[in-house]
Amino acid sequence: MSDQTNEQPRIAGVSFSLYPMSDDYVDLILNALKKVDSTSVWMKADRVSTIVRGRIPHIFDVPQAAFLEVAQTGVHVVCSGTFSVGCPGDTEGHAYMDADDDLQNRELIESVDQHVAAKFALYPMGGGNYMDPIYEQIDAMKARGVNVELTHYETILDGPAQNVFNGLQQTLQAMEDAGSPHTVMTVTISANSPSD
Amino acid sequence: MSDQTNEQPRIAGVSFSLYPMSDDYVDLILNALKKVDSTSVWMKADRVSTIVRGRIPHIFDVPQAAFLEVAQTGVHVVCSGTFSVGCPGDTEGHAYMDADDDLQNRELIESVDQHVAAKFALYPMGGGNYMDPIYEQIDAMKARGVNVELTHYETILDGPAQNVFNGLQQTLQAMEDAGSPHTVMTVTISANSPSD
Repeated sequence: MSDQTNEQPRIAGVSFSLYPMSDDYVDLILNALKKVDSTSVWMKADRVSTIVRGRIPHIFDVPQAAFLEVAQTGVHVVCSGTFSVGCPGDTEGHAYMDADDDLQNRELIESVDQHVAAKFALYPMGGGNYMDPIYEQIDAMKARGVNVELTHYETILDGPAQNVFNGLQQTLQAMEDAGSPHTVMTVTISANSPSD
Repeated sequence: MSDQTNEQPRIAGVSFSLYPMSDDYVDLILNALKKVDSTSVWMKADRVSTIVRGRIPHIFDVPQAAFLEVAQTGVHVVCSGTFSVGCPGDTEGHAYMDADDDLQNRELIESVDQHVAAKFALYPMGGGNYMDPIYEQIDAMKARGVNVELTHYETILDGPAQNVFNGLQQTLQAMEDAGSPHTVMTVTISANSPSD
């Protein structure tokens, strides 16, 4: 454990994209982003993805809500993202670190019953013994109501969207609680796939 | 430099997905994969992504060809992938390391004139001083005919598809030539976006 527990938490962030496999993808994305409450995060879209920064619970709340907004239309949609805590130079947007624990999009998220298939990978940066925390977090995921399957480069997850997103959030938080200097986690979450 | 230069190159791989933002996404993906020659790589699809493994030039050749096959239809399509060399335990499929230098899909790739916007991130694993090679590779990208723009967590790239894919391949190869024990590189490559 690090001595960070008594300090202000560090700013976290995610660069994410939504990919609705539909001719209506522009409207689906814009409508979803319109319905999502992003008042607790710093948020900025560019041509490739949307960046959301703030406290860990909020940077999961916002993409999850946007993803579920699209998923509940029944269209096949993928949310792909890179979560990061401790990236050197990540300092702007600290105003959002005062946001309280209220999750702005909890009602929306809890109203959607959605099964997802996902992949995730964890990259603890700057440490020599980085494989141990990865295996620990893959094991921990099994206790979070998520099916886990090993494959190359990433780990396959399967379960209710809430369990998968909560499980991923707990992984990032666990790394932060353990004092990891810089953690990156990539996720690909798929809903309504014809492969399912 | 490591002493790997006189040894057999290590197996590399990518886990990638194509996201055509179209009602016809199933046909677009299946047709693209059908046209791509994958004889020089180990290849396996699961419910979330397709894994391609072999020598570095071939693991770029295959996803690039599949992506351009979809892109040349004019549909907005994104290729998202995680490239990896040196992942502990990555040993199967070594038969493909004897593949020669002929790139099976070069003709297809060179026939498509496609502009792309992209993001990439480089994760040199297991080393303490991991930021220096990242900054070096971002700088090197500028000399490869690719526009480079900094943002949070990833680096934005912009240019002809061939320059972007070749630039990314050179980055992974440079890390390998420098003896990086385990390198991960994530990429998101977007064609025909209405944001462009």
